[in-house]
Amino acid sequence: MSLLVVGSVALDSVETPFGKAKEALGGSAVYIAIAASYFTAPIRLVGVVGGDFPKKHIEFLEERNIDLEGLQVVQEGKTFRWGGRYHYDLNTRDTLFTELNVFEKFNPIIPVSYTKSAYVCLGNIDPVLQRQVVEQIQKPRLVVGDTMNYWIETKPKELTEILKAMDVLVVNESEARLLTHEPNLIKAAKRIIKLGPRVVIIKKGEHGALLVTEETIFSAPAYPLENIYDPTGAGDVFAGGFAGWLAKTDDISAENLKRAVVYGSTLASFCVEKFSAEGIKDLSHLRIQDRYRSFMELSRFDER
Amino acid sequence: MSLLVVGSVALDSVETPFGKAKEALGGSAVYIAIAASYFTAPIRLVGVVGGDFPKKHIEFLEERNIDLEGLQVVQEGKTFRWGGRYHYDLNTRDTLFTELNVFEKFNPIIPVSYTKSAYVCLGNIDPVLQRQVVEQIQKPRLVVGDTMNYWIETKPKELTEILKAMDVLVVNESEARLLTHEPNLIKAAKRIIKLGPRVVIIKKGEHGALLVTEETIFSAPAYPLENIYDPTGAGDVFAGGFAGWLAKTDDISAENLKRAVVYGSTLASFCVEKFSAEGIKDLSHLRIQDRYRSFMELSRFDER
Repeated sequence: MSLLVVGSVALDSVETPFGKAKEALGGSAVYIAIAASYFTAPIRLVGVVGGDFPKKHIEFLEERNIDLEGLQVVQEGKTFRWGGRYHYDLNTRDTLFTELNVFEKFNPIIPVSYTKSAYVCLGNIDPVLQRQVVEQIQKPRLVVGDTMNYWIETKPKELTEILKAMDVLVVNESEARLLTHEPNLIKAAKRIIKLGPRVVIIKKGEHGALLVTEETIFSAPAYPLENIYDPTGAGDVFAGGFAGWLAKTDDISAENLKRAVVYGSTLASFCVEKFSAEGIKDLSHLRIQDRYRSFMELSRFDER
Repeated sequence: MSLLVVGSVALDSVETPFGKAKEALGGSAVYIAIAASYFTAPIRLVGVVGGDFPKKHIEFLEERNIDLEGLQVVQEGKTFRWGGRYHYDLNTRDTLFTELNVFEKFNPIIPVSYTKSAYVCLGNIDPVLQRQVVEQIQKPRLVVGDTMNYWIETKPKELTEILKAMDVLVVNESEARLLTHEPNLIKAAKRIIKLGPRVVIIKKGEHGALLVTEETIFSAPAYPLENIYDPTGAGDVFAGGFAGWLAKTDDISAENLKRAVVYGSTLASFCVEKFSAEGIKDLSHLRIQDRYRSFMELSRFDER
């Protein structure tokens, strides 16, 4: 099935204790779209770049069968740039610079050919824009959305509005707690369900992910990576793998939501093994399937 | 099979945001022994109390078929007392007081009838005393041990010695990192394996537990509790359930180690649902088995 993706398209400069990348292809829409492209087609990307956006990145996205009709190119503007530096344990990072450029006035206009997209994945952008996107889609089957601390703190009312239109909210631990003022993650997830989404996924980094619905709780393990090079984009890749699997199978049963969480985790585990998007640029279906099975092995135990 | 347990026996006064308990039965040996008593017999307890130790606690432990021949009673002394207050999120606590009393000069002398114990669980006490215990046991099949930040920081050399005699080390995340100076938990576990134990279990509280051996990594989920009343003793109960299951089955294969981790997690989940040891004082085998199966359900997913 079709999957519409909206979010940022950026040039990221990242430093970690293990190396650095300069002006690498990044942004939430890019990470989501690449991850999802291993599962379904067409992927329809809505975003904005400046005239300086490298042609090689356009070519790469097209090679991955990502439809770029919805990618606005503001010729006289500059592409959104972000720079960050991760600390030793990779759990905390400092933002070195944020140059919004053309992203500052991003107005997500959905091409007519995109308006019947069955699945929608809203990257982490202003909740007002997320809502604007959803309103342009005719009866999507499933809307998956992300958000972040910044929007929870600065636009709580607008966020509440878009939450009503989301079927699945994907957040990390601290976002779940901030949104609900509830330290217990299970309680936090259940409170979010009362706000709109019927599925809440809480990403816990090295501790895996939780899937919570009114009836189900599923705990996915994290892949035991000894060497994490760059966590940038892992959350978006998780959402992309998750939404991509659901769009591929067009099955939103509880059992398939669990598989989607593990496919999201699978793609995210590849992402953090290399710098920026390098880890997910050229995966084979065999490698994805092998790692999915490793996730099964990792959490499997029986009765005796 | 027989299980020897050594550790503290204490009277705990605990405050959490949900209530308080005064001079409740506690201590690492007590929590370990109670948890293990649901699986195997005899449980042999080695510890020390003062003449003020309430008779009802002795009676309770005896009712649970815990052999108290190794419990020294110093009639003229006072029992070890500990007081703590948990913060709102239950992840941090302040120690309000520590009165070591008779525990200060604890000399773990193993009764002759205990020296052939097949399984040994060393609660969190001075590594010098842990070693003294192990040296008194004739060829134990499996030695499971715990430690804490205090011993890692103050007795690193003595800890290194006892680690060589441990088959399984059970620690929490921060202890694993402190012991190895390694933020990555998988790497930390592998470094600990180089120090002696062939099995390392890292307890992660609300994020479950990791079992790491040279060949296996197993990720156990945490039971999704919405209401945690008192985390005191949960780590000891985990170790007791783990060691108790292994002693019962006398099977230390990788598959059975995984089951033992889940039985440990099962007992710990009951423990934190009530104050001090109340949650594990009167469990039925049916309740334990039901919750074990809930753990299976919680992490189960399949291929499609």
